[in-house]
Amino acid sequence: MSKLKGVVLLGQSGGPTSVINASAAGVFLEALKHPDRITGVYGAVHGIKGILNEDFYDMTKEDPKELELLKNTPASMIGSVRYKLADPKVDDTDYKRLVEVFRKYNIRYFFYNGGNDSMDTAHKISEFMKNSGWECTVIGIPKTIDNDLYGTDHSPGYGSAAKYVATTLMELYHDATVYDTKQVTIVEIMGRNAGWLTAASQLAIEKGQGPDLVYLPEQVFDYDKFFSDVEKVLEEKGKVIVAISEGVQDAEGKYIPAHFQELRTDSFGHAQLGGTATILAEQVQERLNVKVRAIEFSLMQRSGAHLASKVDVREAFHAGVKGVREALKGTTDKMVAFKRISSNPYKMKYVLAPLSMAANTEQKVPLEWILPDNKGLSKEFVEYALPLIQGDDKAPLEDGLPRFANLKLVRVPKK
Amino acid sequence: MSKLKGVVLLGQSGGPTSVINASAAGVFLEALKHPDRITGVYGAVHGIKGILNEDFYDMTKEDPKELELLKNTPASMIGSVRYKLADPKVDDTDYKRLVEVFRKYNIRYFFYNGGNDSMDTAHKISEFMKNSGWECTVIGIPKTIDNDLYGTDHSPGYGSAAKYVATTLMELYHDATVYDTKQVTIVEIMGRNAGWLTAASQLAIEKGQGPDLVYLPEQVFDYDKFFSDVEKVLEEKGKVIVAISEGVQDAEGKYIPAHFQELRTDSFGHAQLGGTATILAEQVQERLNVKVRAIEFSLMQRSGAHLASKVDVREAFHAGVKGVREALKGTTDKMVAFKRISSNPYKMKYVLAPLSMAANTEQKVPLEWILPDNKGLSKEFVEYALPLIQGDDKAPLEDGLPRFANLKLVRVPKK
Repeated sequence: MSKLKGVVLLGQSGGPTSVINASAAGVFLEALKHPDRITGVYGAVHGIKGILNEDFYDMTKEDPKELELLKNTPASMIGSVRYKLADPKVDDTDYKRLVEVFRKYNIRYFFYNGGNDSMDTAHKISEFMKNSGWECTVIGIPKTIDNDLYGTDHSPGYGSAAKYVATTLMELYHDATVYDTKQVTIVEIMGRNAGWLTAASQLAIEKGQGPDLVYLPEQVFDYDKFFSDVEKVLEEKGKVIVAISEGVQDAEGKYIPAHFQELRTDSFGHAQLGGTATILAEQVQERLNVKVRAIEFSLMQRSGAHLASKVDVREAFHAGVKGVREALKGTTDKMVAFKRISSNPYKMKYVLAPLSMAANTEQKVPLEWILPDNKGLSKEFVEYALPLIQGDDKAPLEDGLPRFANLKLVRVPKK
Repeated sequence: MSKLKGVVLLGQSGGPTSVINASAAGVFLEALKHPDRITGVYGAVHGIKGILNEDFYDMTKEDPKELELLKNTPASMIGSVRYKLADPKVDDTDYKRLVEVFRKYNIRYFFYNGGNDSMDTAHKISEFMKNSGWECTVIGIPKTIDNDLYGTDHSPGYGSAAKYVATTLMELYHDATVYDTKQVTIVEIMGRNAGWLTAASQLAIEKGQGPDLVYLPEQVFDYDKFFSDVEKVLEEKGKVIVAISEGVQDAEGKYIPAHFQELRTDSFGHAQLGGTATILAEQVQERLNVKVRAIEFSLMQRSGAHLASKVDVREAFHAGVKGVREALKGTTDKMVAFKRISSNPYKMKYVLAPLSMAANTEQKVPLEWILPDNKGLSKEFVEYALPLIQGDDKAPLEDGLPRFANLKLVRVPKK
């Protein structure tokens, strides 16, 4: 298998991060260095959907300087997708089609950049192709602001989002305390089932410029406790800043918006969230008769590339590079993963984890890292997270604004 | 008057910006250079309220290095206030008290940093003191992200907020277009009666990475037109990004939330806004049955010091410096203002405008700069705004996070 010659194909999947394109840059730029083995470099237009439709961008047509700029361009430049492949034992239509397309375009190196669901998809594709007799390496590149991927110390995208959360909370702390009137500010942070991103609030707390109360989805959300927590801080300090994960659930497993309306669900069966801060703000206002503001970091926290962590950009890029190098060695059915050697000084090693291990297993914040009474996170968390937000790395300025990558996005002619 | 000797007092008023503390740094650091004339440097704790309560910080106790860091620290470090003084013809209680306190502490140089309401307040104080025989120069330092202050080309705070809006919209553009599904994203931007900040969307549009539709409060908001605008773009492109000011009003002068509930008002008689994007998003979803997301830039747009414009930080600082220099010359009842000499290259002169001129007169976006069909702003606007967002200037990083000013905030002993 190590002498395979053919096309490299990258697909991006799931929600954007500030550095998903940095991983793409790693894959593309490394792939372009091996013309002896790599006969084409494709980007799948909207992930799996693009493959099923034989819809690819030809990355060899791009200016390498623009590919370099991808490192600092947020979201998914070649298009992402939320498309769930069926279980091949139940319905293998899509898988057969994928093998057909891979054969037709001689795709021999497949990279899938995404979170838990994507690693699951990549593993199933890998298995199916093996059984179909089509030799093709399949490598997963981790990506998620939620940091819930199993089998890796952390995931690209988390460091930058955590830096956004901590920096912005520090700024909000200054803003939310300027008046001498009572005020409650409730900030909603992304994270479906894992509270890593909300936990990043602790980095602002360490500076004395963070929230007073922190609620992670790892712990059952108790409404009575919440209102009494808020009331207590309000009495003590006159100001309360709350950081809360969109994913907190009560003892019945209900998200906060579900107390008020039936939840819609996406194609993966995940609840469509949002509104947690607003709903709680209304409740606090009603109960405590105080000025309340609800803030959602919304898409800004996952696309704030201007505030990306240098460590994160570098690791995301090298995860892509490592993926290509491993694929050329014949490695397959693996995810590029990070193994931490030490936190201070920060030392990390790129390793490989079985795709099957990452698939659909969520890595959550250890309960012993969560301080009692929603007071934040322990020193262990700070030691874990701090190295991941170090340094700045952003797009050069042009007219005072980021100069993001400007790709030609030339389609590969259909065969 | 030019030989007056006494205390400098600075008050901050109204909503925070990224650079209100830069102006404070300008006042404090310049004042500290003139011990022959300036016998004390005070910060009023929560603006006018602090003066009425004889509650001051002694800025001479601060480390000058920390005062330098104020340039990049958002919001109001000495506390702000929304307190409306009565018309002195109706009730002069507060004014008498102010003069009493000024005499007691020998305050001879008073600086008030704020927007329209604050300039009005400063002017009334100036008049009253003149009539009371207490010699004290009164200088206004402009400040507002809304950029609606009359008598100045632009106001400190606007450039940085505009840079936040344009940069973040560019990032959201990338995020909001990654899926191949239809999507409407509605972004709500601050600005009560003037649309300058929402207009900054045009800077992102110029890069091909901005909203499709832009709604300013300078034009009557027509619901039918809005829904048909959105539907049209959705049919053409499949994605719609809308930038809308919180302050848009229909033909009856009603804000969008007022269609649904009675508006609360603050002590200046201004409506408490918010919810515009959410309400419109719900309406669009109902009518067009499409995936919709409402985003509010909320406090982030006015406290995002990590994304401050270098030009803005510099001008805010020098407005403070200029204020002190003018006061020492005996200038009074004036606001430090900016006069533009040219846009390209950008040249600007610090001048003085009568406080009475700035007071309560709102500078709005010229109607002739607004393109038809909510397509954005003209080249004239771009020429106007572009110089104001140039360059980066942010706090140094410590542990990967901003190292904001750390003041001792020592109280002046009450006399």
